[in-house]
Amino acid sequence: MSITLALDAMGGDHAPAIVLDAAIEALRRHPRLQLVLVGEEGLLRKELGRRGTSSGDRLRIRHASQVVAMDESPALALRGKKDSSMRVAIDLVRDGTAQACISAGNTGALMATAKFVLKTLPGIDRPAICTMIPTTTGHTHMLDLGANVECSAEHLLQFAVMGSVLASAVDNNPSPRVGLLNVGAEAIKGNDTVKAAARLLEVSPINYIGYIEGDDIYKGVADVVVCDGFVGNVALKASEGVAKMISGHMREAFGRNIFTRLAALVSLPVLKSIKHRFDPRRYNGASLLGLHGIVVKSHGGADAYAFGHAIDTALHEVEQAVPSRIDSQLEILLAQGAMMRSAT
Amino acid sequence: MSITLALDAMGGDHAPAIVLDAAIEALRRHPRLQLVLVGEEGLLRKELGRRGTSSGDRLRIRHASQVVAMDESPALALRGKKDSSMRVAIDLVRDGTAQACISAGNTGALMATAKFVLKTLPGIDRPAICTMIPTTTGHTHMLDLGANVECSAEHLLQFAVMGSVLASAVDNNPSPRVGLLNVGAEAIKGNDTVKAAARLLEVSPINYIGYIEGDDIYKGVADVVVCDGFVGNVALKASEGVAKMISGHMREAFGRNIFTRLAALVSLPVLKSIKHRFDPRRYNGASLLGLHGIVVKSHGGADAYAFGHAIDTALHEVEQAVPSRIDSQLEILLAQGAMMRSAT
Repeated sequence: MSITLALDAMGGDHAPAIVLDAAIEALRRHPRLQLVLVGEEGLLRKELGRRGTSSGDRLRIRHASQVVAMDESPALALRGKKDSSMRVAIDLVRDGTAQACISAGNTGALMATAKFVLKTLPGIDRPAICTMIPTTTGHTHMLDLGANVECSAEHLLQFAVMGSVLASAVDNNPSPRVGLLNVGAEAIKGNDTVKAAARLLEVSPINYIGYIEGDDIYKGVADVVVCDGFVGNVALKASEGVAKMISGHMREAFGRNIFTRLAALVSLPVLKSIKHRFDPRRYNGASLLGLHGIVVKSHGGADAYAFGHAIDTALHEVEQAVPSRIDSQLEILLAQGAMMRSAT
Repeated sequence: MSITLALDAMGGDHAPAIVLDAAIEALRRHPRLQLVLVGEEGLLRKELGRRGTSSGDRLRIRHASQVVAMDESPALALRGKKDSSMRVAIDLVRDGTAQACISAGNTGALMATAKFVLKTLPGIDRPAICTMIPTTTGHTHMLDLGANVECSAEHLLQFAVMGSVLASAVDNNPSPRVGLLNVGAEAIKGNDTVKAAARLLEVSPINYIGYIEGDDIYKGVADVVVCDGFVGNVALKASEGVAKMISGHMREAFGRNIFTRLAALVSLPVLKSIKHRFDPRRYNGASLLGLHGIVVKSHGGADAYAFGHAIDTALHEVEQAVPSRIDSQLEILLAQGAMMRSAT
């Protein structure tokens, strides 16, 4: 059976070029895949032509007359751009024409539009953004990463449920270990919200392993890291910042003179393996969880290789039926009274 | 004129050994320095003897019969251990016997005891923990790092004032750039507390540069990074976690086989320079700011080299009269009505 994904061909810093390149490459990798490019039809036809290809059964074009700007207000985009490439791509998921959509566009607008068009699952107040990040032992899933900057304990429980289901589906892990991010491992540590969330998690059916600290994220002690969107966003970006600082310094130190450049040459295979291991492009593709449908957010500055990973992420979530698995898990929790039907 | 520092000789994972080693070395480095080792007198005499030295004018011993355990409750330590090495060291600062104290012991107990014994400066509700961290261009000062997990906008303003004065004193920088950590650079981003703090900072005499994001910490765009203790603690530990993961992977990749080990040998000077640049021991010594006195917290797992850096940090703050400079700055702000005399 084929799977159809809708691509917002106009979103991101390098659209539509990198979206088209990634699309052509993804169709080669996945024989069952079909793609719908959403955007300005004339432009997309021309760009496909420049790449020596054209639309067909597996690569269709769906015209959309508007584009959401990267710095546009989410509320304005939602109200004023009903024919944007982002909106139409999400509409295709709601209609069932596509099983998932991917956009490298404005995160806030994507979140607002996806929530408005697809609606949240029963028991979920607000969708969360979840991404995979590398650890010493493999990878972990971390959420929320910025969609919800003020969270209640109930929200953190919802994130834990969604993250647990995602990790279970994506990693084929029957019982993912869920850690709650805090400033210390002892029970007395943390703010009131985190302490209240811990009490909810302790009595939930989730495999909750307790508090974890910032450095534990990368030790691989948890398969899912739960935190509010403010903390998650800052922690992830700080981590990226450190990694960039170190790699920048390495480049500089190895480029300093003829001897260090020789050392770099001798070390090339090692340096390449290090670069590959932590290449952020391999982790591109954050999932908007808690919706009736699959929406994947690519980094705005992604290249075709990175966007391809976001396509693979969406494809994998379709194959694993992530939203309906989250829905089933939520139903169990709601029936048990472990969660309220709606906290809003 | 000489400067006297009190060292909690019993605090930390490797006390008293590393404290004594660091003390002896610091006396060599700083001819004007005098140190008071606070702890179990018999043990300290014996340990000094094993190092071929003894107490004297520049290295005195002050007996303290108790030790605060690393996992002890701060409240219990404060009430029940009035003759702990930590408490006596802080008492020496209050009495004027020492101009500052350094401890590698229990952070919560140190904070509670320092606040109780030394009291906070007028206008400061709660002390904050501030540390120096490396950036691409040098270093920055970040606070709070865990002392205050729930903060009001007013608290963030207080942190900004204290961090600004510290950076100004330590770096001889007349107008340190102060950034407020947030999830985005746009004015609409962030939670209510951060937005309210931004409004306070905009009208303050501080050189406030606006919101900065997690990755900006390491770009050197701000000399002071202000955030609540929860976010600061997680961001700092996550950063340490990433750095450790990368260095661990590098070690592994360079040790894989005979060829990679040869590459490591050729690259040794470069690898050493990278290691030195980001050596966390060189950034050891966090300042408890906002008190009538100087208290420096060393990492609990510090070795003698790292503890020596904490001693240097305290010495530098004494020379620069950091608490009285913070006090003067607060007085100006209080007189201007930019801050309330007491928010508690």
